[in-house]
Amino acid sequence: MATNDLFNKDLNVINIGLSSFKENIEEAGAHAVQVDWKPPAELDKKILHILSENESYIKTQNKKCLEKILNGAPVLIDLKPAIDVIPGMKKNMILHAGPPITWDRMCGPMRGAIIGALKYEGLAKSQKEAETLAASEKIEYSPCHEHNTVGPMAGIVSPSMPVFVLKNETFGNYAYCTMNEGLGKVLRYGAYSDEVIEKLKWMETVLYLALKRAVKELGKVDLKNIIAQALHMGDEVHNRNRAATSLLYRTIAPAVIKTNEKDVAIKVLEFINGNDHFFLNLSMPACKVTLDAARNIEGSSVVVAMTRNGTDFGLQLSGTGNQWFVGQAPIPEALFFPGYTKDDANRDIGDSSITETNGLGGFAIASSPAIVQFVGGAAKDALNYSQEMYEITTGENNMYQIPALNFRGTPTGIDVIKVMEKGILPFIDTVATHKKRGVGILLAAESSRAD
Amino acid sequence: MATNDLFNKDLNVINIGLSSFKENIEEAGAHAVQVDWKPPAELDKKILHILSENESYIKTQNKKCLEKILNGAPVLIDLKPAIDVIPGMKKNMILHAGPPITWDRMCGPMRGAIIGALKYEGLAKSQKEAETLAASEKIEYSPCHEHNTVGPMAGIVSPSMPVFVLKNETFGNYAYCTMNEGLGKVLRYGAYSDEVIEKLKWMETVLYLALKRAVKELGKVDLKNIIAQALHMGDEVHNRNRAATSLLYRTIAPAVIKTNEKDVAIKVLEFINGNDHFFLNLSMPACKVTLDAARNIEGSSVVVAMTRNGTDFGLQLSGTGNQWFVGQAPIPEALFFPGYTKDDANRDIGDSSITETNGLGGFAIASSPAIVQFVGGAAKDALNYSQEMYEITTGENNMYQIPALNFRGTPTGIDVIKVMEKGILPFIDTVATHKKRGVGILLAAESSRAD
Repeated sequence: MATNDLFNKDLNVINIGLSSFKENIEEAGAHAVQVDWKPPAELDKKILHILSENESYIKTQNKKCLEKILNGAPVLIDLKPAIDVIPGMKKNMILHAGPPITWDRMCGPMRGAIIGALKYEGLAKSQKEAETLAASEKIEYSPCHEHNTVGPMAGIVSPSMPVFVLKNETFGNYAYCTMNEGLGKVLRYGAYSDEVIEKLKWMETVLYLALKRAVKELGKVDLKNIIAQALHMGDEVHNRNRAATSLLYRTIAPAVIKTNEKDVAIKVLEFINGNDHFFLNLSMPACKVTLDAARNIEGSSVVVAMTRNGTDFGLQLSGTGNQWFVGQAPIPEALFFPGYTKDDANRDIGDSSITETNGLGGFAIASSPAIVQFVGGAAKDALNYSQEMYEITTGENNMYQIPALNFRGTPTGIDVIKVMEKGILPFIDTVATHKKRGVGILLAAESSRAD
Repeated sequence: MATNDLFNKDLNVINIGLSSFKENIEEAGAHAVQVDWKPPAELDKKILHILSENESYIKTQNKKCLEKILNGAPVLIDLKPAIDVIPGMKKNMILHAGPPITWDRMCGPMRGAIIGALKYEGLAKSQKEAETLAASEKIEYSPCHEHNTVGPMAGIVSPSMPVFVLKNETFGNYAYCTMNEGLGKVLRYGAYSDEVIEKLKWMETVLYLALKRAVKELGKVDLKNIIAQALHMGDEVHNRNRAATSLLYRTIAPAVIKTNEKDVAIKVLEFINGNDHFFLNLSMPACKVTLDAARNIEGSSVVVAMTRNGTDFGLQLSGTGNQWFVGQAPIPEALFFPGYTKDDANRDIGDSSITETNGLGGFAIASSPAIVQFVGGAAKDALNYSQEMYEITTGENNMYQIPALNFRGTPTGIDVIKVMEKGILPFIDTVATHKKRGVGILLAAESSRAD
């Protein structure tokens, strides 16, 4: 269409910004479409002033923080019962995903997982007994994150549960995570039937000991190496762990056989082979042990934890110690089973966003086009998602790479200032939820300003 | 630069086509650069006439051929000694890679591998004894391809060697391949020292029996499924087989443990874990058993075998039965160890280009950006290489996909007419050699015209 023709045609207007413009056009008799867009949230002037006065200092401190993240060296060194090894763990304590929360504010899946844990610990025999106990002051709740621990979904850790013991070989700190239960009815989704407890008991009495022996035989398992390779093999090690689970399997199988009875070795290897998410419970603490070493760098605005408990979304920054910035957890945009909609969905839950915090998961989704296909979308979308993340991160990873971006390091070290400045908050840990995921951050930022 | 300025400047000419133009320009005192380019080779008029008269018939037949390739269902069902199972195998026969060749025309690596095989069979004690025997009429040579078999590099198969037995479940045909020896000094590269023979003996007496028991326990192993998954995990299953080897490992490990002594199971699994190319000797016969079912479709110009023996390059078409079209094998453009150059290189060798013939390997290289990084190049180059291949193939694969191209099926079913028409011949089986690889096809096409 030539420009001159424009004035001889009916006007069709796309309005961006104030909707009053659209109304004026419509009053004049033309068609107008309103685009659902808002300019980036304006930051409080006081905050802007503080940020601009400290800009170069914050930059320096963020660089220090990133260095610590990049130099992290997570290795698996042992498995032990939670009560024996997790700092601050108590006999009457239950750890959970996300920021701090009390029983009365917990969502259904988290309560369900706690009921299961109390049955598993032998502290309650029925659902009712467990609920009464859980609501009493006899049980103490604490976030995994405050005990060098992470947990997927409900993230429940009770004292008898065996956990992986990870060490950051560069900085000497430790992190912990339970073993992945596999698919079907599992505690992490809030299931607490007898079959769930039975499986947890098998994991405690058979799987745990078998893997403990194998890890002892191997000395250690280099998780950074496995993650780096898995990114070259279609994993982003949050929602896809098929390659990483395979590489782990190859690494430990001979040691599992060597140190266990034949039937135990077979069952253990079949269990791992049957569950491609097995490595998730290692990629998560690998990120945790890496990020914990980057805490407490004064003035750093780098995120060292972001997580959800099914009710609240919370994040912690390197420069603000153990303070939680908390907002409402978003309801994920997801694929639902037939007959279910977003109305049936729980708010987002789990510590697994520790992977994004370390430049993996959604931040590395361009390494994992198969994930995009699963949630709907094209391989190009995955590239775009990952590329957007470079705009809110401090730097690029030195070991974790995205083949499809010519082996560029993954965007690493989320800078909360960049997130706030952008206004749009494209945080993702799954593609399906990436737009909503930002809501929590926005609220967190607002809660930060309110303090 | 404005066009008017052109005539006030020194002329720098880039000449494409006849070099006499360039010479004229130089005589006139200007600079000229000659581009090394030739227009597409003109096809013999007789051939063009035949092709155009039969165009729609050939198209129909090629479609039939492609259907057979796409419906192939390669599974591993057993392992057996070559002499017991390979059709036409004899006690004094040695199978080799590539088209037919006699001892006197064989390259060094193939002769070396034959010396090793004769030692391994106990038919010769020294190199000299083996050479004398090999050159005599007592030993019969035959291409793997003529016995439903394929072999990487020298591709030597002698009667006692155990081979994988594959079945095409859709069409009922079989294919065979030896087990991969791993890295270091190996027969397939022409090594024949005692350690090479010792390893082959271990493979015959330990590895073979252990895997035979495991495969019997499993019933079968679905190779098409593993290959399809591996393409989503960074493999192209020719030069990169890390994911496929891992998936195979996970599939067979419990059965290996169940059916073998503990120390045997450990050694077998450690051997496979130590060699990411282990799956190559399954991806190759998986392609062979798929393509053999697509042979003998009258009028079809689809390539069902293309291969090198270190001296000659040969191909076979579906519509021309067992006829070989043979030309000189190219010398690969490759990375050389320090101190070595292309002058030291052997002409190309091996049946492994059966993977390209089935739409894998170089044809699926966009699935495997890590390979491109290894040989030098960008991830985008891999996309381009794979996309070029659609121009010379009959269709797209239904199971084998390229995630980076939005899960488009790999280019499958090389149509030799399209190759000839294009004049440029961008065949690849490794990126490094993709330019030279075409030479063999051109010669083959010319040999076809000469017949």
